Amino acid sequence: MGIQRIAMITDFGPGPYVGQVLLRLNALVPVVPVVDLVSDLTPFRPDLAAYLLPALVRDTPAGTLFLCVVDPGVGGARSALAVAADGNWFVGPDNGLLAVVARRAKDLRIQRVAWRPDWTSDSFHGRDIFAPIAAGLCLGDGLEGQDVSPSSLAGWDGSPDLAKVVYVDRYGNLIVGWRAAGLDRRARLQIGPLELPYARTFCEVPVGAGFWYEDGFGLVEVAVNQGRADRAFGLEPGNDLGPPRF
Amino acid sequence: MGIQRIAMITDFGPGPYVGQVLLRLNALVPVVPVVDLVSDLTPFRPDLAAYLLPALVRDTPAGTLFLCVVDPGVGGARSALAVAADGNWFVGPDNGLLAVVARRAKDLRIQRVAWRPDWTSDSFHGRDIFAPIAAGLCLGDGLEGQDVSPSSLAGWDGSPDLAKVVYVDRYGNLIVGWRAAGLDRRARLQIGPLELPYARTFCEVPVGAGFWYEDGFGLVEVAVNQGRADRAFGLEPGNDLGPPRF
Amino acid sequence: MGIQRIAMITDFGPGPYVGQVLLRLNALVPVVPVVDLVSDLTPFRPDLAAYLLPALVRDTPAGTLFLCVVDPGVGGARSALAVAADGNWFVGPDNGLLAVVARRAKDLRIQRVAWRPDWTSDSFHGRDIFAPIAAGLCLGDGLEGQDVSPSSLAGWDGSPDLAKVVYVDRYGNLIVGWRAAGLDRRARLQIGPLELPYARTFCEVPVGAGFWYEDGFGLVEVAVNQGRADRAFGLEPGNDLGPPRF
Repeated sequence: MGIQRIAMITDFGPGPYVGQVLLRLNALVPVVPVVDLVSDLTPFRPDLAAYLLPALVRDTPAGTLFLCVVDPGVGGARSALAVAADGNWFVGPDNGLLAVVARRAKDLRIQRVAWRPDWTSDSFHGRDIFAPIAAGLCLGDGLEGQDVSPSSLAGWDGSPDLAKVVYVDRYGNLIVGWRAAGLDRRARLQIGPLELPYARTFCEVPVGAGFWYEDGFGLVEVAVNQGRADRAFGLEPGNDLGPPRF
Repeated sequence: MGIQRIAMITDFGPGPYVGQVLLRLNALVPVVPVVDLVSDLTPFRPDLAAYLLPALVRDTPAGTLFLCVVDPGVGGARSALAVAADGNWFVGPDNGLLAVVARRAKDLRIQRVAWRPDWTSDSFHGRDIFAPIAAGLCLGDGLEGQDVSPSSLAGWDGSPDLAKVVYVDRYGNLIVGWRAAGLDRRARLQIGPLELPYARTFCEVPVGAGFWYEDGFGLVEVAVNQGRADRAFGLEPGNDLGPPRF
Repeated sequence: MGIQRIAMITDFGPGPYVGQVLLRLNALVPVVPVVDLVSDLTPFRPDLAAYLLPALVRDTPAGTLFLCVVDPGVGGARSALAVAADGNWFVGPDNGLLAVVARRAKDLRIQRVAWRPDWTSDSFHGRDIFAPIAAGLCLGDGLEGQDVSPSSLAGWDGSPDLAKVVYVDRYGNLIVGWRAAGLDRRARLQIGPLELPYARTFCEVPVGAGFWYEDGFGLVEVAVNQGRADRAFGLEPGNDLGPPRF
């Protein structure tokens, strides 16, 4: 199956940056649907987004090209990657953002893309470099570049899971970079001096109680029934959850 | 007229939840346009959203399927509804969210949908249950389920209008769950000790003055010319407006 | 080249207003793609948006109709404009919002649109007046109205550039209404008692240092490497940057 749609994963926020990329893509590949999957990732933290990315992808339909842009700085030098992994495609900077999704892939091909457009701004590489590369892949263009080995990726040698908050959603739930699938449900999650029990979902604990559960992305998520876990525990993206003694 | 488009009405916020539903729908019904109509409804308050819903629908084109997800809790048990009402369709949980739109419909059919996909997450029913039901309706699938009487809906016996703030918009205007059409323009709206007069629109009152008017949805809306009514009156969604002595 | 797509530029915020316009447009011109380019412009400030508009347009593909709605008040009287400028189209209120883009155009035609739909709400002219005008242009309808001279536009006699903050992005960067192209890179930008130097991009200054650079829109932008310029300098949209001694 070829590329059916593009999904954007960025830290661009609510302003004009997502829209400018959408317009560029619409001009380059007008027949390909584009979805703004998430644009409020923590700015400058590809290390956190890397562990959210495979979870975001898990339950999305195959045949999707994920255009991923989260950078630790703006305008820094890093190469552009085009990754084919288990039936999906990923385009983004080589700064660790794509490392976890690549590491977990069974079927993997990584290309370092040397092609650049004639003109780019100094700062808006999402619009000027990565979007045209994504469009080129949709069009089947042979983009100038070379296949590289996975171990050459930035961040390739990171930990399998990450015991940090990687995202806080609008309800104040804390999404952790740790896959829930293999965890014993009797385990407790340590937050400072507290130990949170597992619950299948919100309605199984009293109002105001904290717990961890397997969220809709397959990750450990910390929540408070009818409350905000971020405020209850004073945590934000990047915070450590203590030794992960699940 | 059949289903021309899908509009999402949720409390999902700015994160990845809307995007995940958009991707799922794109895979299931790629030719149907999907619009994220509103995603910042007050979390956990279907009782408020219920009175905003018919107002949001009033001036949208017919032939729209509204995919509505606002839940008081997460993962709780409630059945799934598919409602056909006056030329539009509504899919959502049976928790009162669809009760007002159903109650006001002249032409109404309500189905309790028993069909469930093979797998669902415990928490993300918007993506895993309601979106596939919406797609099934678009495709003309005969979804397993049964017609039920309107009076069996949760929230069916609620009040005709609701004298509460149901939404605060980005300008700080307070949208009230009360239809403006039948109200005498000489009436005053009581907020605590204050009594606000009617004005046709902002430009008809002095800068800083509070007033009520009929908004673009046909509801009573409280505003302050060139100011924020939410701060001026200290009100937020769910707050009572005192006895509705319009 | 005709109209290929519509892009929305508004101060409507994250609520239901953008979605209602998207639904209206989908019903009127279902084959035309619509992108929400930016919806978080400073409320009630067309004077600021006017200087951001040509910058937003600079790197978007030609053949785009920009549906622009930012109003100083709500429901006030001002005429509706349809502007054709250098291969793009603009629809919006005659309140200065379109004046800068018109002033800089080489190829310009301005029409004052007298056509109105049978019914409109008192407040939501974006949905009820401007969206149908945009759709009419897409359909090639001859909208009732008349060509007018550029000098009759509100705001036509404004300054060429504006030394004010016109937008603050999600990273806290301050976008200034001043084109960077002609500026000497040795110039310093004055903010109160401070004088900021130029840098090509973030990675060329120390962490925490403030600087100005040419942003991805071609405007002067004030930033702090790995910091928030809005907080560092205490500035927000509309604030003056002192005499522009670039």
